[in-house]
Amino acid sequence: MALMTGKEYIESIRKLNLQVYMFGEKIENPVDNPILRPSLNSVRATYDLAQMPEYEDLMTVTLEDGRKINRFTHIHQSTDDLIKKVKMQRLCGQKTASCFQRCVGMDAFNAVYSTTYETDKAHGTNYHENFKKFLRYCQNNDLVIDGAMTDPKGDRGLPPSKQEDPDLYLRVVERREDGVVVRGAKAHQTGMVNSHEVLVMPTINMTEQDKDYAISFAVPTDTEGILMIVGRQSCDTRKLEDSDMDVGNAEFGGMEALVIFDNVFVPNERIFLNGEYDFSGMLVERFAGYHRQSYGGCKVGVGDVLIGAAAVVAEYNGAAKASHIKDKLIEMTHLNETLYSCGIACSSQGYETMSGNYMIDLLLANVCKQNVTRYPYEISRLAEDIAGGIMVTAPSQKDLESPVVGKYVEKYLKGVANIPTKDRLKILRLIENLTLGTAAVGYRTESLHGAGSPQAQRIMIARQGNLNMKKELAKNIANIKE
Amino acid sequence: MALMTGKEYIESIRKLNLQVYMFGEKIENPVDNPILRPSLNSVRATYDLAQMPEYEDLMTVTLEDGRKINRFTHIHQSTDDLIKKVKMQRLCGQKTASCFQRCVGMDAFNAVYSTTYETDKAHGTNYHENFKKFLRYCQNNDLVIDGAMTDPKGDRGLPPSKQEDPDLYLRVVERREDGVVVRGAKAHQTGMVNSHEVLVMPTINMTEQDKDYAISFAVPTDTEGILMIVGRQSCDTRKLEDSDMDVGNAEFGGMEALVIFDNVFVPNERIFLNGEYDFSGMLVERFAGYHRQSYGGCKVGVGDVLIGAAAVVAEYNGAAKASHIKDKLIEMTHLNETLYSCGIACSSQGYETMSGNYMIDLLLANVCKQNVTRYPYEISRLAEDIAGGIMVTAPSQKDLESPVVGKYVEKYLKGVANIPTKDRLKILRLIENLTLGTAAVGYRTESLHGAGSPQAQRIMIARQGNLNMKKELAKNIANIKE
Amino acid sequence: MALMTGKEYIESIRKLNLQVYMFGEKIENPVDNPILRPSLNSVRATYDLAQMPEYEDLMTVTLEDGRKINRFTHIHQSTDDLIKKVKMQRLCGQKTASCFQRCVGMDAFNAVYSTTYETDKAHGTNYHENFKKFLRYCQNNDLVIDGAMTDPKGDRGLPPSKQEDPDLYLRVVERREDGVVVRGAKAHQTGMVNSHEVLVMPTINMTEQDKDYAISFAVPTDTEGILMIVGRQSCDTRKLEDSDMDVGNAEFGGMEALVIFDNVFVPNERIFLNGEYDFSGMLVERFAGYHRQSYGGCKVGVGDVLIGAAAVVAEYNGAAKASHIKDKLIEMTHLNETLYSCGIACSSQGYETMSGNYMIDLLLANVCKQNVTRYPYEISRLAEDIAGGIMVTAPSQKDLESPVVGKYVEKYLKGVANIPTKDRLKILRLIENLTLGTAAVGYRTESLHGAGSPQAQRIMIARQGNLNMKKELAKNIANIKE
Amino acid sequence: MALMTGKEYIESIRKLNLQVYMFGEKIENPVDNPILRPSLNSVRATYDLAQMPEYEDLMTVTLEDGRKINRFTHIHQSTDDLIKKVKMQRLCGQKTASCFQRCVGMDAFNAVYSTTYETDKAHGTNYHENFKKFLRYCQNNDLVIDGAMTDPKGDRGLPPSKQEDPDLYLRVVERREDGVVVRGAKAHQTGMVNSHEVLVMPTINMTEQDKDYAISFAVPTDTEGILMIVGRQSCDTRKLEDSDMDVGNAEFGGMEALVIFDNVFVPNERIFLNGEYDFSGMLVERFAGYHRQSYGGCKVGVGDVLIGAAAVVAEYNGAAKASHIKDKLIEMTHLNETLYSCGIACSSQGYETMSGNYMIDLLLANVCKQNVTRYPYEISRLAEDIAGGIMVTAPSQKDLESPVVGKYVEKYLKGVANIPTKDRLKILRLIENLTLGTAAVGYRTESLHGAGSPQAQRIMIARQGNLNMKKELAKNIANIKE
Repeated sequence: MALMTGKEYIESIRKLNLQVYMFGEKIENPVDNPILRPSLNSVRATYDLAQMPEYEDLMTVTLEDGRKINRFTHIHQSTDDLIKKVKMQRLCGQKTASCFQRCVGMDAFNAVYSTTYETDKAHGTNYHENFKKFLRYCQNNDLVIDGAMTDPKGDRGLPPSKQEDPDLYLRVVERREDGVVVRGAKAHQTGMVNSHEVLVMPTINMTEQDKDYAISFAVPTDTEGILMIVGRQSCDTRKLEDSDMDVGNAEFGGMEALVIFDNVFVPNERIFLNGEYDFSGMLVERFAGYHRQSYGGCKVGVGDVLIGAAAVVAEYNGAAKASHIKDKLIEMTHLNETLYSCGIACSSQGYETMSGNYMIDLLLANVCKQNVTRYPYEISRLAEDIAGGIMVTAPSQKDLESPVVGKYVEKYLKGVANIPTKDRLKILRLIENLTLGTAAVGYRTESLHGAGSPQAQRIMIARQGNLNMKKELAKNIANIKE
Repeated sequence: MALMTGKEYIESIRKLNLQVYMFGEKIENPVDNPILRPSLNSVRATYDLAQMPEYEDLMTVTLEDGRKINRFTHIHQSTDDLIKKVKMQRLCGQKTASCFQRCVGMDAFNAVYSTTYETDKAHGTNYHENFKKFLRYCQNNDLVIDGAMTDPKGDRGLPPSKQEDPDLYLRVVERREDGVVVRGAKAHQTGMVNSHEVLVMPTINMTEQDKDYAISFAVPTDTEGILMIVGRQSCDTRKLEDSDMDVGNAEFGGMEALVIFDNVFVPNERIFLNGEYDFSGMLVERFAGYHRQSYGGCKVGVGDVLIGAAAVVAEYNGAAKASHIKDKLIEMTHLNETLYSCGIACSSQGYETMSGNYMIDLLLANVCKQNVTRYPYEISRLAEDIAGGIMVTAPSQKDLESPVVGKYVEKYLKGVANIPTKDRLKILRLIENLTLGTAAVGYRTESLHGAGSPQAQRIMIARQGNLNMKKELAKNIANIKE
Repeated sequence: MALMTGKEYIESIRKLNLQVYMFGEKIENPVDNPILRPSLNSVRATYDLAQMPEYEDLMTVTLEDGRKINRFTHIHQSTDDLIKKVKMQRLCGQKTASCFQRCVGMDAFNAVYSTTYETDKAHGTNYHENFKKFLRYCQNNDLVIDGAMTDPKGDRGLPPSKQEDPDLYLRVVERREDGVVVRGAKAHQTGMVNSHEVLVMPTINMTEQDKDYAISFAVPTDTEGILMIVGRQSCDTRKLEDSDMDVGNAEFGGMEALVIFDNVFVPNERIFLNGEYDFSGMLVERFAGYHRQSYGGCKVGVGDVLIGAAAVVAEYNGAAKASHIKDKLIEMTHLNETLYSCGIACSSQGYETMSGNYMIDLLLANVCKQNVTRYPYEISRLAEDIAGGIMVTAPSQKDLESPVVGKYVEKYLKGVANIPTKDRLKILRLIENLTLGTAAVGYRTESLHGAGSPQAQRIMIARQGNLNMKKELAKNIANIKE
Repeated sequence: MALMTGKEYIESIRKLNLQVYMFGEKIENPVDNPILRPSLNSVRATYDLAQMPEYEDLMTVTLEDGRKINRFTHIHQSTDDLIKKVKMQRLCGQKTASCFQRCVGMDAFNAVYSTTYETDKAHGTNYHENFKKFLRYCQNNDLVIDGAMTDPKGDRGLPPSKQEDPDLYLRVVERREDGVVVRGAKAHQTGMVNSHEVLVMPTINMTEQDKDYAISFAVPTDTEGILMIVGRQSCDTRKLEDSDMDVGNAEFGGMEALVIFDNVFVPNERIFLNGEYDFSGMLVERFAGYHRQSYGGCKVGVGDVLIGAAAVVAEYNGAAKASHIKDKLIEMTHLNETLYSCGIACSSQGYETMSGNYMIDLLLANVCKQNVTRYPYEISRLAEDIAGGIMVTAPSQKDLESPVVGKYVEKYLKGVANIPTKDRLKILRLIENLTLGTAAVGYRTESLHGAGSPQAQRIMIARQGNLNMKKELAKNIANIKE
C-alpha cells in the first residue's frame, strides 16, 4: 500500500469511531471541530511533506524489501537514520510552528522493537514477533500511532501498588486465554484524537509487587472502552472566534488528552510485555531516550519560526537596526542551535542494539532534553522583549475591523509606514500564540515536561555521567594513590 | 470628604459615561462586564484594604492638615513614605495576584509634582499651582487616576515630528484662549476603564521641533473625545465561561486599553506642561523612575502568590519532600526577595526634590526594573516545573462536572488521597493563569515592558553608573598617572 | 584615647608578639613581610580613611557619651547605622580593591552583644557585662578584632563530638576557677595577623552532647598557645618579585590564616558563652547574618574597581565605543548595583534586638549573600572578556624593561597610540589580580564561601521565607477551602 | 619515517636553536626549564598516547598511501575524521588537564589546505602544491606546528594600514626574487616553544589597502629573526618551588608567547598566500571554524578532570551524599556534555570542500565556541563551591612538612578520617590550579578568547543564521503576504 496523502489521512481519521469529549460534551465529529482541527492539520503536514520531492529524503524511507514508508513509521537502521529523524522533526516544526504529534509513536516503535527482542531472549516470550507484525501493519497502512506512557500517578511519593486507588497506574485487571483486560488511564496524550492506534507502555521501572502494571500493548484508538477527554490549552477557545488574526496560527496547533482505558480487552497478539517487570525499566529508558532526542529537532523548528517572527516584528516596528535587537536575535539563534547540536550529537553517537535497530546516546539525549527545559523559555522571553508590550495590549481583530473604532486601531497601531497594521498585528499574535497562547503549551510547558520532567533527566545524567572514571582522571593528575 | 469604601468606588465608576469598546462593540456597562469586572475588583481592593485597621499604616496617610487619604494619592514626604509605598504594593499584589492599576497614577502624581515646580522656576509658568489644585481634588475625592505616558510611536526609528502620521505621538492641534485641543493616543493604558481621571504626560525627551508634543494635562476619563479600546489578553474569554475553576483567579484581574484622544479639549487650569520641551525629559525620567520602583513591590506580591501556589501543588502531588522541589522553592523565593530588595533599596536611598517631595534613587530603581524583566520569567518556569505537565493538559471544569466523564476526571486526576481533585485542579489553573493566562500578561510581558522596556533601563544604568569615577578608582589602584 | 592614625596602627601591630608561620618558617617581622604587608595596608586604610574629613560621617561615630570611635568598633544603634556600615564597606573596597579585614570583628561585636544579653536573661549568666567591658576597651584603643568562627570541621557528615579527632571543632579541654583552657583551630581567619584581639565564636548550632564546643571568648592575638599559619593565595609570591606592574595591586591585598589554639587559657572575664549550647545557634545566625550583609558592601566596592578597570582597558584597546563593550559594562554595573541594593535593603529593614542594638533583616541578608556567590563570577567573566586574551599572555615587567626584548614588548603590546604600553599592561595586571590572582581569592572564592557557603544561605532562605503564609495567599486566590 | 615516541619528541625540540626569553632573560635550555617543561610534557602526551594500542584509532591515521601519521598532522577526509578529532582532543584534555597545544597546527593545516586550493583556482597561483609539500614533510617527520594567526592589533578601532605603527599587523616589508621578508608579531602563541615549525596566517579579512598584510607562510621555529617572549601565567613561579602539591598539576601545563618576527626571510616555496587579500577572509574563517570546533573537545576533557576533582573532594570532605552536592556535579556534567555535543554536532554536519578535505559546519562550530566562553566559568564556580573555602586558605606544602607546624596542618586540615590530609590538599590544589592557577589561564580566559573572542562568534552566528529564511517561515505561519 502506498503512502497516504494528507487528504487521505484526514479521511482515514474521519472513519474512526472515536470517543472524544471536550467541555463535558461528546464531540461527534472531531475532524471538523474548530478547536481540534488545527492539531489534525499538524499531523497532516507529516503526510503532505512526505509527498514533496524536495523532502523525500528526510520524510520517507525505502526499505530493503522495496517498501517506501513514511519515516515516522521507520525502525532506525543507522546513526544516519537517527540524524535524519532530527532533521525531519526540525522541518515539521518549521512548517507547523506547533507539535505535529507523530514522533511519540515513532519513538515508541523503536523502543518496543529493541526491548521486546531482549525480553524474549531473557524470558522466552514471543513479543518481538507480535510487535513486528503490528509494525508492518502500521508501515503498510501509513498509520499514526499514539505512544502512551505517562500514567496519572496519583501520589508521587507512592509506587503503583501502594496508591489508594490501584488504577492510578494502568494495569491488567483480568487475564483471559485470548488476551488481557486493562484498566487505567494515560495522561498528556498528545495527538491521541488524530491517531489510528495507541501503543501503551509502562511509565516507570517496576518491581515484582507491581507486576500487573508491567504491561505493553497496542490497540486501535476506537477500541471499546477507550475514551479521550481533551485537555484545555491557554486560549483554546480563541479558535472558535472565526478570526484569522487573533488566533496567531490559524492552520496548525497541538492537542492533548486524558485517555481512559475502562476495561479494555487486548488480544494476545497485540501484547508486547506482560508481567516481565524487569524489562519495564529498559522500555521506559529507551522510549524516554528517543523522545528526549526528538525535542532537539521539533522544538528547534518551532524556535526557528519564533526567531523569524521576532525578526519580522523588529522590522515592522522600525527597530531592526538597533544593536541590542540584533544581539537578541543572535542570542535566540545561538540557544536554538545549541539545542539542535544536542539533537544531532546524541544521534551521531548512537549505537546498534541487540535487535539491530539504532539507539541514541543516552547521556547526550538527556543532556539535550535538559537544555530544552531551559532555552525555549529564554528564547520566548527575548521574543517578547523584541515584540514590545503591544503584543499583550493590542485590541482584537473585531476592533480592527469595526466600522466605529477600526480606523483608530488602523491608524494608531501602525509601525513603519509601508507595512499594513494588520500584518504587524498578525505577527504579534503569532508571537503571543507561541509564548502565551495555545502553542506556548507546546513550546514552553511541554518542553519542560514532555519526555520526562527536568529532574528525570538529571537522574539519568547522574547515572550515565561515569563519575568514577572522572574521579580517576583527577587522582591521576593530582598524583593521588589511594 | 472621607475615604471611599470599595462599594462606593464601584458605584462612582458606574456613574461615569465612559466610551469603552471591546471586540468591536461598545460596552454599555463596563462595571458589570465579566471580562472587565475582575480588573475593577483589583482596584477595589485598594479601597477595601484601606478600610482594614491592620493595613491602615500602609494603605493610608494622615496629612499635616489632618486630611486622611489613601496612600495611592499621596505625595511622598520622606524615604519612609517611599518604602511604605513598596510594601503597600507588595500587599496589594499578594491579595489580588494581578495588577491593581492604581500605582501608575501615584507615580504620575509625584513626577508631575516635582517637575511642574522646576518648570515654573525656569519658565515662570504656573503649572505647579494648577497641579496642586488637581491633586487636592483627587485626594479629597479618593479618586483613581490613570497615568498616561506611552504613545503608539509608529516607526521607532523616527522622532514624533518625523512620523508619516503626525498623530502617532499625542500633540496639541489647536491652541485657544481657554485651553488646548489635543489629538493622539496612549497605548497600554492599564486600568483606564477603572479610573476617574487621566493624567497625560509626554513619552520621551524632546527637542524644539517636537514642541507641540511636549504636553501634560489631566481630564476626567469621560471627557468628550476620549475613547478606550480594550486590549486582548491571553485567555480573556475564559472569564465568560462562568467557571470558578478554569479561570484560575475568578475575582481579580488586570486590563489594558488603547486610549484615543480625538480632539479633546483641555482647559488651562488642567495643563501642567505646554511646549516647555526642555522639561519633558525630566518628567519622563522621574515618572519612569518611580514606576520602575513600583515593580519592586507589586510583582513581588504576585510572585508570593505564585511561590505559594507552587508549594501547594507540590503538596497535592505528593512531591513536597523531594529535595529538588524544595530547592526550586528556595530559588523562587531568593529571586523574588532580590526584586523586593531592589524596590526597598531605591526607596531607602531616595532624596528630596526642589519641590519638597521625595524621589527614589534613579540608578537603583532602574536596576530594580531590569531585574524585574528577568526574574518573573524564571520564577514562572520553576512554577511550571513544580506544577507538572497536567497544568496544560487537564480537562475543563465542564468535564470534571460532566455526568458522563466527570467520574473519570475525578478519579484519575487525583493527587494525594486526602485532597479533592477539584482543589488540585484549581491550584493548577491558578498557576496556568499566572504563567500562560490572563495574569501572565501582567506577570511576564508587562514585567518586561511596563515602565519601559529593558533597553530603556540599560540606557539609564549607563547614564547613572558614574563610569568615570570607577575608572579613576581603577587607575589609582593600578598606579596609573595619565 | 583618640582614633589611631594609620601609622600608629602599623606600629601597634609591630609591638605584638605574634606567632606567624608561612612556607614552613616563622615570620619574625610580619609587619614588613612583603607578602603580608599589602594586607596590613588594607587594614591601615580603615584608619587613614577615618582621618579624612570627607569620610568622617561614614567612617566614625560619636557616641552619646562623647567618645568618637571608628565605625568598625561600633554597636549599631539604628537602621541608619546599618546602612552607613554598608556604605563604609563599599568605600573601603573602592580604595583597596581587596579585603580590608576589619568587618568580621564588627560583625562579631554586634552578634555577641545581643546574644550575650539574651543568654544572660535565660541563664542568669553575666556574659553581657563581660562583653561590654571588652567592647569599651576595643573602642577606646581603636583596635582591630578578628572574629573567629569557622572550625576545620573534619568530616562534614559528623557533629563535633562524633569526629574521630575531638579537636576538629574548638572546645574547652579544662575548666579552672579563673577560666578555661581551649584547644582547636579556626580556619580561613581573614586578617588575623593584622589584629589585636581575636573574638572566638562557635560555628554551628549545637545540642547538649556538644556542650564543650559551645564556647565564645576573646583574647589578645599574641596570647600564649595561639599560632597562625598563613594560607597560600594564587600568585602570592609575585609580591616578592619587587615589581610594581605584574603584581596588579602593589599596595593592597588580603590574607588568611589557619589559627591554632593549642591549650590557650581564657580568663573568666573574657568569656561570653560557656556551655549554654542553646544559644550557639543564635550567635551563629546573627554573626552570619551581619556578615552576609557586609558582602553587599565590600564586594560592591571591589566590583567598582573591576568595572572601572574594564572600562579603562576598553579605552586603551581602542574598543570603548563598540556597542557590545558598552553593553557588557552596563551588565557589570547592573549586577554590582543589585548586590548593593541587597546590602542596603537588609539594612533598611533591620530591627532592634532585646539588647538595644540593631539587627539586619535575616531573610534579605541571606538573599544578599546568595547573590554574592554568583554575580562576582559573572562580573569577572565580563571583565576578562573586555580585557582580551593579552591579560593572560602578556610578558613580565622584567621583559618590558629588558634591554634586549623590552623594545619588542613596548612596540607590540601598545594599544591606542597615546597610552604608554606600561599603563595598558598595568591595568591588565589589575584585572588579572582580581580575576585570577591574589585578589581573586577574595573577590571570587571568598564571595562564594565567606560568611557561609551558598547552601547555608539557601537553608536560611527556606527557614525565613514564610512558605506557609504564601500558601495561604495562593489558596485564597484559588478559592480553596481545605 | 615512523611516529616519534614522546622521548624522541623531547630530544627533537632540544635540538632546535630557539630564541626564548622569559622574565627578561634568554632561556638557554627551554626543554628543561621548570616553568616551561610542563607545557612540553603536555605536547609529549600527544606522542605518548599515539603509541598506546588502546588509543591508536583516535590518535593515529593510516593514509591511503600506507603512511601512518599522528592525527594531529592529518587532513580530514570525512565527517568521521572530524568526530575523531574531537574525541582525540577530549582524551588529551583528560590526560593532561591542560592545553596540549598541538590542535592549532592541525587546524591551520586544514584551513590552509582548502584555502590554497581555492586561491590557486582564482588567481592561478601555486600555493596548494607548496603547502602539500610542507604538509608531507611535517607528517613524515611527525612535527608540531604552531598555527600563528593573532596579530597584536594595536588600536582595535583601526585597520592594519591605518595603525600609527604599521608593524602592529605582521606584513611583508621586502619582496625578493627568492622570497619575502616579513616583520611583525603574533600574540598568544600557544605552544610556540614546543613547536618545530610555525605556520603564519593573516588575522582578519582584508581589503586592497592591506595587501601587504595578506601573507601566509611556514618557517622553522628557530629561523633567524624569530624571537619568543614567554607570557606570564597566574601562579607561574609556583613551578619553581619544587613542590609536588602546591603546584596542583606537577606534570602538565600550558604556555603562551609573544612571537616577534624581526625581518624574517621566507623562501618562495614556503609561501601560501601573498597579497591575494580576497582570500584572507576565507582563511581566517576556516581556521577559526576548525579551532572553535576544537574547543568542544579539549576543554571538555579538562572539564572531565575538574568534575572528577570536585567529586573526589566532596568525598574527602564527607559531603558526597548531600543532595545539593550531587546536584552540582550533575549540573557540571550537563554543561560539559553540552559543550561536547556542540563539538560533535559541528563535526557530524561537516562537508567536503573543493580541495577534498572536510570542513566543519560553520554555524554550529561558532555556537560551540560561544558556549565554551560561558560554561567553563560556571563549571569552575561550581567546583569552587564544592571544594570549600579551604581551597584558597590552606597553608603551603612547606607548612605541611614543617617540623614545627606540620603536625597542626596535618591534624586540622584532615577531612574524612581515612584519607591522608596531603591527598585532600592535593586535590584542592588541583582545583585551584584549574580555577585560579596556571591551568585557569587555559580553562577560563583562553576558553573566552582562544579561537576568537565571544563577539567574533556572535558576528558569525548572525551571518550564518539565515534569518531571512526564518522570517519567511514566520510569515507563512502568520499568513502574511507582503
